Amino acid sequence: MKPRSESKSQSESDGAITSLRVVDVRFPTSRQLDGSDAMNPDPDYSAAYVIVGTDRGDGLEGHGLTFTIGRGTEVVVAGINAIRPLLLGQPLAAFIEAPGAFVAQLTTGDSQLRWLGPEKGVMQLANAAVVNALWDLWAKIAGKPLWKLLADMSPAQIVELVDWRYLSDALTPDEARRSLDRLVPTRAAREAELREVGYPAYTTSVGWLGYPDDKIRRLCREALDAGFTRFKIKVGANRDDDVRRAALVRQEIGPDGVLMIDANQRWDVGPAIEWVTALAPSKPLWIEEPTSPDDILGHAAIARALEPLGIGVATGEMVSNRVVWKQLLAARAVSFCQLDFCRMAGVNEMVATLLLAARFGVPVCPHAGGVGLCEYVQHASMFDYVAVSAGLERRSIEYVDHLHEHFVDPCVIRSGCYQVPTAAGTGITMKRSSLEAYSHPGGSIWKEILAT
Amino acid sequence: MKPRSESKSQSESDGAITSLRVVDVRFPTSRQLDGSDAMNPDPDYSAAYVIVGTDRGDGLEGHGLTFTIGRGTEVVVAGINAIRPLLLGQPLAAFIEAPGAFVAQLTTGDSQLRWLGPEKGVMQLANAAVVNALWDLWAKIAGKPLWKLLADMSPAQIVELVDWRYLSDALTPDEARRSLDRLVPTRAAREAELREVGYPAYTTSVGWLGYPDDKIRRLCREALDAGFTRFKIKVGANRDDDVRRAALVRQEIGPDGVLMIDANQRWDVGPAIEWVTALAPSKPLWIEEPTSPDDILGHAAIARALEPLGIGVATGEMVSNRVVWKQLLAARAVSFCQLDFCRMAGVNEMVATLLLAARFGVPVCPHAGGVGLCEYVQHASMFDYVAVSAGLERRSIEYVDHLHEHFVDPCVIRSGCYQVPTAAGTGITMKRSSLEAYSHPGGSIWKEILAT
Repeated sequence: MKPRSESKSQSESDGAITSLRVVDVRFPTSRQLDGSDAMNPDPDYSAAYVIVGTDRGDGLEGHGLTFTIGRGTEVVVAGINAIRPLLLGQPLAAFIEAPGAFVAQLTTGDSQLRWLGPEKGVMQLANAAVVNALWDLWAKIAGKPLWKLLADMSPAQIVELVDWRYLSDALTPDEARRSLDRLVPTRAAREAELREVGYPAYTTSVGWLGYPDDKIRRLCREALDAGFTRFKIKVGANRDDDVRRAALVRQEIGPDGVLMIDANQRWDVGPAIEWVTALAPSKPLWIEEPTSPDDILGHAAIARALEPLGIGVATGEMVSNRVVWKQLLAARAVSFCQLDFCRMAGVNEMVATLLLAARFGVPVCPHAGGVGLCEYVQHASMFDYVAVSAGLERRSIEYVDHLHEHFVDPCVIRSGCYQVPTAAGTGITMKRSSLEAYSHPGGSIWKEILAT
Repeated sequence: MKPRSESKSQSESDGAITSLRVVDVRFPTSRQLDGSDAMNPDPDYSAAYVIVGTDRGDGLEGHGLTFTIGRGTEVVVAGINAIRPLLLGQPLAAFIEAPGAFVAQLTTGDSQLRWLGPEKGVMQLANAAVVNALWDLWAKIAGKPLWKLLADMSPAQIVELVDWRYLSDALTPDEARRSLDRLVPTRAAREAELREVGYPAYTTSVGWLGYPDDKIRRLCREALDAGFTRFKIKVGANRDDDVRRAALVRQEIGPDGVLMIDANQRWDVGPAIEWVTALAPSKPLWIEEPTSPDDILGHAAIARALEPLGIGVATGEMVSNRVVWKQLLAARAVSFCQLDFCRMAGVNEMVATLLLAARFGVPVCPHAGGVGLCEYVQHASMFDYVAVSAGLERRSIEYVDHLHEHFVDPCVIRSGCYQVPTAAGTGITMKRSSLEAYSHPGGSIWKEILAT
């Protein structure tokens, strides 16, 4: 990829990476029941937060985070510290001119670090924070929001973002490029539509485990009033409760509302099929994370069993890399791809997954919530619509109304739709005051909590 | 599981866990080409090494390690430090009386730490070191080598070791127990046989990448003289070299010798099939790690393509947990199960994998080499033979002649067979002098290396 602003006094790719700072930032969300589900009863929404600096002298920094839920964030910080030496001193041009090769080298090119995954777990979370910080930097230098930076690339440039290793039995670079080529003439129309209407969202804020029925009813009504038509609730702790809660939400949202249910990996294959069958009268669109995220064949078996009931299978928030996605998609194990912006190795692997999902005709409905995920994934879906899938049918982005106040450019929802981000970068830059107050364990908020 | 020595003044399960120390220990093996393969050109064989202490007053400590290859060992150390608070203060009885539940609680019971995997990557490596240290402690207290401690358990006790979550579509506890029950009457005969002959080994020391042809020939002859009949070489860097080297080894070991080849994840699915087909004239028993360890369906496709050539598919050293094993076995994606003692969550998950492999009739040939893996996995295979599979056909344990001098009770090979370990524990206790000299970066060896 050539630098595209050589006429300026300083081009996009001038300069080198000179610093990488990490902050362990944690929000004490476990004190409410917000965010509680069948497997994660008490999350403290947290992040290993990276700030990359250069010697360009323009004051721009690349910010990136990976989402965690409290304890263990310090292990991801250690992972990022292990990656730092690979990055410091690298010319920015090495990334901007060959982003796919650069990221592959960064994330799996060090054979000693690769052993710790490969491409999964703590090191993959660490890779995500670092890679996404580089993209934030690039987008800020380019003066564009991430989705627009990506959507302005040629098909050849997009294909170059991907680490193609292990994918050729499902999709080759040439096939991907031909598919992208066909959509170039209509990109502008879809971009204009997005700018006018936004991208559909669904809300997960109505049905966390532990919410009493009347709170769920109230939240459904508030969400309907705000323009939402798609609602997700948590299930998997108690079957009778789930049947009652699902019916209650269906009653509130009416026959045309969309209901989704999420078990957060609670079941074995057989019990998943039985439990979801009991919920079928409430007509859920999908069952999310019915079982272990590693169980590709298990998801396929569940998907086959639930297809006659009109219920799809969704997963993704714990899918670590493009190789697992390739299989979930090829085996028809998922009817919805819930890619995560931090679980995989950042933007590049997100693009790989969008290309694979388009290849298999599976709609992408990214995982969001937590802290920063809404800000992140809107870029994935908007880029997907403009340049990759060109589809909106059965697609929406998760939305959870949590912690947005900590971001300089928080996502904006209007009439149940994410509005197009306009600020340069990935939108993940956190307010300095929040980073300081919630840094763990030394920030003012934690000093207070830990003292009591 | 009930304590079985209540008549003694102190029972096996008295006392509580009072300390957990971690050492980052690294051997500068990258200075030779020993251990080099297509994906790991310069490993420094290393370990995050755990020492668990109690208040029993008998001076016994539990030692455990997880194998790494240099940089990033400090990230695993951070992972172990994150697990420490879950362990300190726990009564030993909680582990010994319900080992399966205890380990499941330790490794995935903390929902905040679970997010970092789940059950994969750095946290799973950390879990392995900790869990295996607990087993070392138990075996030392019981005065038995690990394989014997396990082989003396009743089928019901063995079944209790396993975290059965996500397995029931392939194997239930009842099915496993019935299968174990059938072998109880003949256990003693197999144990006697093992004590006399040992367990077959194969050697990986003859054909690391980078060895010149005449060195390979010499090493083959030395290994034949030492009683080995099974040989593995590394492939995947250059096809012509591989064809020549495989033919050369076949010539040295004769038509009755067993040849295995190992690509260390070098290929995509299609290229794997083509490359291995070119090596078919040398009649390899298996191709190991032909592609990404995450690619279950890819391994299945390769296995189907190579079956007519009489070449099996093997993998395992980077398989993170029992859920992935369940699928590799059920999908006939592997003809050999190369389970790893440190990649999964320790002894308990090793037992789960042995039960699954027996269920699907797939022989187990554990991954060894590195540092300490030979010492570890001999216990898995010997327990497997006595109590789980009762088979030796097409089974052998990898052997690499590296770094054994650092262990108090190193494994013993005679006439190409692992001899039955007799010392109490898991055999992983490292000499104090080695731990000190090779600790990174403060040990004397590293001080010297880092100064130059």
